[in-house]
Amino acid sequence: MSNPTDGLAETIAELEAYLGTEGVLSRPQDMGRYRRDWSGDYEGTPAAVIRPRHVSEVSEAIKICNRREAEIVPQGGHTGLVGGATADRANQIVLSLEKMDRIRSLDPLGMSMVVEAGCVLQTAKDYAERSGCFFPLSLGAQGSCQIGGNISTNAGGVNVLRYGMMRSLVLGLEAVFPDGRIYSDLRALRKNNTGLDLKQLFIGTEGTLGIVTAATLKLYSKPRWVETAWVSADNIADIMQLFGYLRGEAGDFLSAFELMTPPCLDLALELDSGVSLVRNEVKHFAAHALVEFSSSGGPDLKPWITELIANAFEQGLAKAGIVAQSASHSKMFWRIRELMVEAQQKRGLHLRTDVSVPISSISPFIAKVTQAVEKTLPGSLVVAYGHVGDGNIHVNVLPPEDFNGFQGKLGALTATINEVVDGFDGSISAEHGIGITKREEFAKRIGETHLDMMKMIKRSIDPKNVLSPGRIFRIGPNSARGPQSVEMDPRPE
Amino acid sequence: MSNPTDGLAETIAELEAYLGTEGVLSRPQDMGRYRRDWSGDYEGTPAAVIRPRHVSEVSEAIKICNRREAEIVPQGGHTGLVGGATADRANQIVLSLEKMDRIRSLDPLGMSMVVEAGCVLQTAKDYAERSGCFFPLSLGAQGSCQIGGNISTNAGGVNVLRYGMMRSLVLGLEAVFPDGRIYSDLRALRKNNTGLDLKQLFIGTEGTLGIVTAATLKLYSKPRWVETAWVSADNIADIMQLFGYLRGEAGDFLSAFELMTPPCLDLALELDSGVSLVRNEVKHFAAHALVEFSSSGGPDLKPWITELIANAFEQGLAKAGIVAQSASHSKMFWRIRELMVEAQQKRGLHLRTDVSVPISSISPFIAKVTQAVEKTLPGSLVVAYGHVGDGNIHVNVLPPEDFNGFQGKLGALTATINEVVDGFDGSISAEHGIGITKREEFAKRIGETHLDMMKMIKRSIDPKNVLSPGRIFRIGPNSARGPQSVEMDPRPE
Repeated sequence: MSNPTDGLAETIAELEAYLGTEGVLSRPQDMGRYRRDWSGDYEGTPAAVIRPRHVSEVSEAIKICNRREAEIVPQGGHTGLVGGATADRANQIVLSLEKMDRIRSLDPLGMSMVVEAGCVLQTAKDYAERSGCFFPLSLGAQGSCQIGGNISTNAGGVNVLRYGMMRSLVLGLEAVFPDGRIYSDLRALRKNNTGLDLKQLFIGTEGTLGIVTAATLKLYSKPRWVETAWVSADNIADIMQLFGYLRGEAGDFLSAFELMTPPCLDLALELDSGVSLVRNEVKHFAAHALVEFSSSGGPDLKPWITELIANAFEQGLAKAGIVAQSASHSKMFWRIRELMVEAQQKRGLHLRTDVSVPISSISPFIAKVTQAVEKTLPGSLVVAYGHVGDGNIHVNVLPPEDFNGFQGKLGALTATINEVVDGFDGSISAEHGIGITKREEFAKRIGETHLDMMKMIKRSIDPKNVLSPGRIFRIGPNSARGPQSVEMDPRPE
Repeated sequence: MSNPTDGLAETIAELEAYLGTEGVLSRPQDMGRYRRDWSGDYEGTPAAVIRPRHVSEVSEAIKICNRREAEIVPQGGHTGLVGGATADRANQIVLSLEKMDRIRSLDPLGMSMVVEAGCVLQTAKDYAERSGCFFPLSLGAQGSCQIGGNISTNAGGVNVLRYGMMRSLVLGLEAVFPDGRIYSDLRALRKNNTGLDLKQLFIGTEGTLGIVTAATLKLYSKPRWVETAWVSADNIADIMQLFGYLRGEAGDFLSAFELMTPPCLDLALELDSGVSLVRNEVKHFAAHALVEFSSSGGPDLKPWITELIANAFEQGLAKAGIVAQSASHSKMFWRIRELMVEAQQKRGLHLRTDVSVPISSISPFIAKVTQAVEKTLPGSLVVAYGHVGDGNIHVNVLPPEDFNGFQGKLGALTATINEVVDGFDGSISAEHGIGITKREEFAKRIGETHLDMMKMIKRSIDPKNVLSPGRIFRIGPNSARGPQSVEMDPRPE
């Protein structure tokens, strides 16, 4: 299966003739970093990697692949966590957007910028900041993930509470349909009501309906006042009350409210003893929140925030806490948030989930899901944290010490967690998408009408199923093509 | 053509048998208010009006119509301005959502509410406010327009600058597809990434792909501090500089910036002499803005805003102006904004447009479009005003005095204005939609790929073209149905 078929060799030869040898990698030794994602959970050697430099090259390359019915998997910064962007069959061609990484323009009065799909998120954010503006999408992977990936997965992150998901930050889009036709509307219009908003076909659809090549992004005023605080409470119910209080008083100033449970702090400490400063202050408490207030103008927030937090203490809503007195203080708070993710990664095989529930159900949800996981696999460690304002909780599970059978438990643990999510009317995929990992669990939950519609639109737009095949859902045979080959992905879903 | 065909009579009989006589109106004397929209520009007697009370009734009624290939036109609060919601052929059945007007639930911690399509916007806003929350969609027609119409036209209004269009306020949706199947996902989830976001098929598509029956709406914290100011400058370029300055300093506090030109004030005065107070202060200036700052928490804005406006004067960015000192003062400013719209209406036949251009092009755009209109029809009065932060300008045209041939000029004037819009990379339909009015002008501008995709999706979802036929675009004959009858709408497009 690792040798491409003859037809595939011809496709690659045709792509090489068009894109040049720089634009097509097909020797195994050149493909190393295109084979796996950041999590290490997904690995697959593609038949080739193509690296177009312009939307017209993307279009032409897709036309070649479509004509020859070669499968294409678009790839961004390798930070997806659901196996969407790595080859899962040896006949797939990876389309990397890395050579399309320019920032085409920025309009400071109009507050918008045009960025190519391969541009790293951090690069785009830095560029906006140098122009006196602010691009608000913020997430752990921002130093590696790319704008195209952010759009095709509708990325979330820590500032959704204030600015919304990636979907609400896209004003215009340039993309290529599976038949190679180009959709281009990069006009920086805040209002443009002309029927079906075609952009939406590409946002969050994980490359199944087209490949994003550039976007016009909405910019904001730069935050002028940013105040950060760490607050701890006796339990999650109290922390949620605190959230309600702070949001009521601070309104839109509340730009992040990151819930953490005690294992999160322990994990962060494994990687950096410097954070023990915070930990010693708050270690007796069962629920923590990293709270950020910000405003892009108006009067200085500091005195007001200090009073607000003091009031929260007086009312008993917070039991311990620190208002950051300096930038380095605030950096340390955020560093805990990052370290705890890295530490889980360093621990090796573990279960990551990304679910959402109505905000008012967060506290009972975490209690119930923790109990259910501990029942399914006694001795396992539940690491729960998340973006409270979005109802988005990551319920991760680390294996019991010296336990070797964890791989075999992943399926049962996922099923356990998802069942609890269902009980709270939640979603099993808040911000990471479906990819391949969650396909089966997703299929169980999506309504028949919903799935039919999605498949019908997929079939209409990509009748040969060449683009991101098998992502989100498997699609049966259709008239243009025979039944698909058997999936080779052996991982539990 | 005013007599329904026999097939239609049978359809209506079947609908009556299912919905009861209360649910189906078919006598001409009962159909008065369903015949025309608020503008009076569109009038058409439908074959019948159906008024379902539940999503299951909507579903069943649509199944009946679909099976019998009867055309359905969904209707909300009659405030659309592009002829989308009135019957334009005598064989069409109007589906009014007015009996589905309940507010199903509101979650103050989760900040969301579930509202039925027929609920009047103002009613939803009031309910949210009584629960300590805020639903931000605000527009002139809010006392009549309905939530379903707001969604299917992706309504905008005066607070888009801060809160976005209706699209960004919809968390969940319940809707009925043209074949009667129900799509229902009213979960109040802030994050839910599961492939194609099916909601988007119904938002802004003017009923062509389905009928919205209920929605879960995103609520915000109630504005706590609201400050309003009227500022005037020598010309529009200066007013735009002022906009840049205020947005830079106030950031997201700037919640509205409504540009008005001198004819706007004159028109308002025609209906209410009380507003002369403002007018006398500022009448020598060529550009005005109604500016609103608001925040939903944090420190009192008043002292800071007063200083900010004083600075704008010092820098020469504003030449005259008043910071509202009381609620009644601020109401008067907004009253001018409303009166000017009503006064145009009272003047009788006039041309309304609703275009958008990049924010940085607003000043040269207004200059150029005014010149072009005056050349096309000397003596006509250009009334330009709009939502600056969204680049959304209404360029309306009133006929020269005692001029009777205005109807015959509408087409040429529209073409003139739209050409100027094209030159600035703008949109000919910012917030009102396409409907029937703008269909031809839209068809000229939309790219071939874009139109093909829209038609392909329409054909896949509504192969018999029963839902809102002819809205947004005409669609040719397809296999399931013969060529459509000739359009009867005689108005210029």
